[in-house]
Amino acid sequence: MLLTKINDPQDLKKCTLPELYTLAGEIRQFLVENLSKTGGHLAPNLGVVELTLILHYAFNSPKDKLIWDVGHQAYVHKMLTGRREMFPTLRQYKGLCGFPKMNESPHDVWETGHSSTSLSAAMGMATARDLKKEKNHVVAVIGDGALTGGMALEALNHIGHEQKNVIVVLNDNEMSIAPNVGALHNYLGKLRSAQNYQWAKGELGHWIKSVPAVGGKLMNLAERFKDSMKYLLVSGVLFEELGFTYIGPIDGHNMELLLETMKIAKQNKGPVLIHAITKKGKGYAPAEADSVKFHGVGTYKIESGDTAKSAPTYTSVFSETMIRLAQEDDRLVAVTPAMPAGSGLIPFGEKYPDRLFDVGIAEQHACTFAAALATQGLKPVLAIYSTFLQRAYDQLIHDVARQKLNVVFAVDRAGLVGADGETHQGMYDIAFMRTVPNMVIMAPKDENELRLMMKTASLYEDGPISYRYPRLPVRGVELDEELHPLPIGKAEIVTEGKHVAILAFGHIYEIAEQAVEQLHREGIHPMLVNARFCKPLDEELLSRLAQEGYKIITVEEGAEMGGFGSAVVEYLAQAGYHDVPVQIVGVPDYFVEHGSVKEQRNEVGLTAENIAARTRAWMPVTKGVVEA
Amino acid sequence: MLLTKINDPQDLKKCTLPELYTLAGEIRQFLVENLSKTGGHLAPNLGVVELTLILHYAFNSPKDKLIWDVGHQAYVHKMLTGRREMFPTLRQYKGLCGFPKMNESPHDVWETGHSSTSLSAAMGMATARDLKKEKNHVVAVIGDGALTGGMALEALNHIGHEQKNVIVVLNDNEMSIAPNVGALHNYLGKLRSAQNYQWAKGELGHWIKSVPAVGGKLMNLAERFKDSMKYLLVSGVLFEELGFTYIGPIDGHNMELLLETMKIAKQNKGPVLIHAITKKGKGYAPAEADSVKFHGVGTYKIESGDTAKSAPTYTSVFSETMIRLAQEDDRLVAVTPAMPAGSGLIPFGEKYPDRLFDVGIAEQHACTFAAALATQGLKPVLAIYSTFLQRAYDQLIHDVARQKLNVVFAVDRAGLVGADGETHQGMYDIAFMRTVPNMVIMAPKDENELRLMMKTASLYEDGPISYRYPRLPVRGVELDEELHPLPIGKAEIVTEGKHVAILAFGHIYEIAEQAVEQLHREGIHPMLVNARFCKPLDEELLSRLAQEGYKIITVEEGAEMGGFGSAVVEYLAQAGYHDVPVQIVGVPDYFVEHGSVKEQRNEVGLTAENIAARTRAWMPVTKGVVEA
Repeated sequence: MLLTKINDPQDLKKCTLPELYTLAGEIRQFLVENLSKTGGHLAPNLGVVELTLILHYAFNSPKDKLIWDVGHQAYVHKMLTGRREMFPTLRQYKGLCGFPKMNESPHDVWETGHSSTSLSAAMGMATARDLKKEKNHVVAVIGDGALTGGMALEALNHIGHEQKNVIVVLNDNEMSIAPNVGALHNYLGKLRSAQNYQWAKGELGHWIKSVPAVGGKLMNLAERFKDSMKYLLVSGVLFEELGFTYIGPIDGHNMELLLETMKIAKQNKGPVLIHAITKKGKGYAPAEADSVKFHGVGTYKIESGDTAKSAPTYTSVFSETMIRLAQEDDRLVAVTPAMPAGSGLIPFGEKYPDRLFDVGIAEQHACTFAAALATQGLKPVLAIYSTFLQRAYDQLIHDVARQKLNVVFAVDRAGLVGADGETHQGMYDIAFMRTVPNMVIMAPKDENELRLMMKTASLYEDGPISYRYPRLPVRGVELDEELHPLPIGKAEIVTEGKHVAILAFGHIYEIAEQAVEQLHREGIHPMLVNARFCKPLDEELLSRLAQEGYKIITVEEGAEMGGFGSAVVEYLAQAGYHDVPVQIVGVPDYFVEHGSVKEQRNEVGLTAENIAARTRAWMPVTKGVVEA
Repeated sequence: MLLTKINDPQDLKKCTLPELYTLAGEIRQFLVENLSKTGGHLAPNLGVVELTLILHYAFNSPKDKLIWDVGHQAYVHKMLTGRREMFPTLRQYKGLCGFPKMNESPHDVWETGHSSTSLSAAMGMATARDLKKEKNHVVAVIGDGALTGGMALEALNHIGHEQKNVIVVLNDNEMSIAPNVGALHNYLGKLRSAQNYQWAKGELGHWIKSVPAVGGKLMNLAERFKDSMKYLLVSGVLFEELGFTYIGPIDGHNMELLLETMKIAKQNKGPVLIHAITKKGKGYAPAEADSVKFHGVGTYKIESGDTAKSAPTYTSVFSETMIRLAQEDDRLVAVTPAMPAGSGLIPFGEKYPDRLFDVGIAEQHACTFAAALATQGLKPVLAIYSTFLQRAYDQLIHDVARQKLNVVFAVDRAGLVGADGETHQGMYDIAFMRTVPNMVIMAPKDENELRLMMKTASLYEDGPISYRYPRLPVRGVELDEELHPLPIGKAEIVTEGKHVAILAFGHIYEIAEQAVEQLHREGIHPMLVNARFCKPLDEELLSRLAQEGYKIITVEEGAEMGGFGSAVVEYLAQAGYHDVPVQIVGVPDYFVEHGSVKEQRNEVGLTAENIAARTRAWMPVTKGVVEA
């Protein structure tokens, strides 16, 4: 294996081009084999094997800065920078991160996870370089999906204006996670289908305009098209109008072509956009056939590509219930920022194609678009991951809550998310929504209650309302036949009890229930409350607990700072209940890294044992015996 | 006056075109006179007089939806929709809002304040219209500055893709608040300077392509250019590539031309972009000469345009101190999203042109760009209004705090902001930053302490750090000669005292001090603490207060939910101090409307009287006498 000799990008530079092709094959085999055991982002990485090889071949990382947008396509980069042997631990607790990570390697100069940040990063690094009068290249690799994110366009605008030496590689695989949406995508489609793309793959090698350094031959080619309307359509005029030298489209699996292009780009003055066409899943038939399935995948059988059938999840319950609610109320529509599959909205879209709006990677627009739908009497459900809702925070405040519009926020991937790690944890939604007036904030204790909260939200007509649910399998509880709405701001007392009240908010109720079951076996009987609402709080219940002398333990799978527990202590202080002991159990104040949700919960203390221990310690002791 | 007869857009429709020009003159005179007494956004409104007249003439509001991006240019719209007589109360407490407001008029179909939301709103309203099979036009008016905001580009992309019937009027006045930044601006510049713009103002009237409904004559004109490179440059090819029919550029003060264009746009299938060139401040010489000054202005003398000299503000102290710190540390750079003047960075930019980065209306990019500068060892200060930082929340979490980068957040306009009202209140920054790991959150009690905190931030090397300061004149305290840094996480005990401790966070300390002065006169002596830090909290001090039996009153000018007071009660609960009474005084859970800061503070109870009364009520009473 040639691959075992590559432990640093410098090793790569000794290779011949045929050896690079050998390496590409070995890398694909390595990825297909390793990821069959660990899972991971297979298809995106199979698509960038040649591109990554050539970037490390043509540039000098880490002096030259390689920035990976989103970052789930950085596996090949990790393999080439000394981390190949860590792949059996990929995305596992204390193992190799699935995204670039500065503390893993000096070659990871920028961490990602969320989309569309790479151009801003590149602009910052290039600006700092010039200010410090240093010499190095800055290269950002961004997908065509990520390019529709507003901040990427903001950065394109800034880079173009300042004419910074930045090389942007547009990794155009016709796919972000879902098929791309938007006019920009259509524009790229025109480029892809253009005749010159065929040439690029063929004899001519590549095709370029306005790179004066390159000289005669290529310039003439461009000249030939200058007065033709077709030129306008097939060239990168849109990017050029923004100030970029555009090169492409080129075949992103052709390493001779890629290398030659990189050489040209390195010599260019001002920003360059290299438009490379790649194929997601390239070289592994099952992934080529279904790149959505193999975008992020669990373990699979190499021969067939078969994956384990996944158990029903909170998301699949959301999925089914959306269709049921849509049948009952034709005002109900759904909005997703590029996550129709992840959010479980494919069946909804099949049944109601006119009522599902996939706006692309564009969380800000998604939220304000939903707000506008609500002004016209529709009932939009914005299905969005907790971590991505951070991108639409101003829109949630300024456009939805301030105008008190009836937008439903279906906050998926709330709480600890497991293998995606710190960039994707749904930690802050409770806190950042709670501070906003007019919000109603719910979280279901199980999948049945998720359905009831969806019904509650669909009937609520007094402003925005949200429910949060995790990236987890369902608990397997019985499902109510009828979907009755829940009273706003009312908690559910599951079991009455003495001395200590455990208030659990959301799906983490599960561990509170386990703790109470254990305590019951010990003869200890705290009150167990399913809080249901963080805003408005059940003030009546809290008053009762205060007046009856309960100690309170709050439990939530979210940041302790500013979350549900914080709301409880705030209320008690403001209401004048100044002697109620409260303990807040949630996620402490740091970024929790990748692992399984169970491992992450153990790490932060979100366990039945911890809840039970805290309850035990608060039970009054009479003659040495815990009072039951 | 013709103007007094216009109390509804229907009245306008009876006018002849010459009468509309008479009206335009009367409207300008009305605005110049009224705003000289109340202040307000004069220049933007003088720029859209003709445009607004024609929009209401050509369309049927409110059936047709008129959406005003940012909204500070909606005064003419307000005058034409029955609110002319309310202008003496403009931006005053309980008076006419400076932005569109649904509860003022059915013609205000969408509320704004923040930039770049109008295209998402238009897309939502058009989508709802089509879903409901209704017939009406949707028109969004957006400035060239607002168009650089990422969410506007996200929406353009979506509208273009879906080919919705939406009319976008690009109000291109070469100016957002500051001169525009970015490649997109250069592109618009090319259009502006193009020959055809001259024609537009002249005989030809206008110039159009790809509107099949229009027929022969105009089409031929377009044909003539079809094979010319110039066509590419002067046409709206960028917008057309995104799927829009582009019309323009046209003279936005020529009402014949505007009217004809609107008629064409109404007949068009699919989205239209009308590129109108207007002049900010049009018709009032002082505003034409200095449209930055007259963008948002206080009272002024009509003859001269002279405004009252403004007193030094927190922002001006920030401005001076930035220059001083930049002299001491050449790593220090400043980033602003289109607010160089508002943030007080003009002098810094004059002195250090290479170290000031105005990235345009692009808060997301601004934040991540700053993060990237920090990765290269620079010390970026992101100067941003509290309310606009909401736009960069994900970037603050994901790119800055998670990577623990040394970005300084200079959070201006924190707290109540006065006349701009609810869209601009700086209410949530404490809460939404506090929940994020690695953040340090400071707020100065006065302008001298602002300088010390800036010094503290410039020396801090352990991740992001922020300080928040208000849109207010300075208190007039003595300024330290030397800028010594403050110890991280340490509060300042200003006066020791008994029984009750008042912990004030930030500039609102002023009222706490007043309260304590009053109480001293009554012989009551609470402890007065300048909290300085919300994160990390001064846990040592809080422990001492708890152990010594103090009652605590927290004071902050920010949302009570999740803010500084919330941090205090959270800490006390978690540290096991379960019997410390705390009252949280801040801004209650609703959106506070426009007025003076003093009126807003009175409304929410952020007054010395309230603090004093709460303190008095908590002092122990011995034999009927409050113990001192």
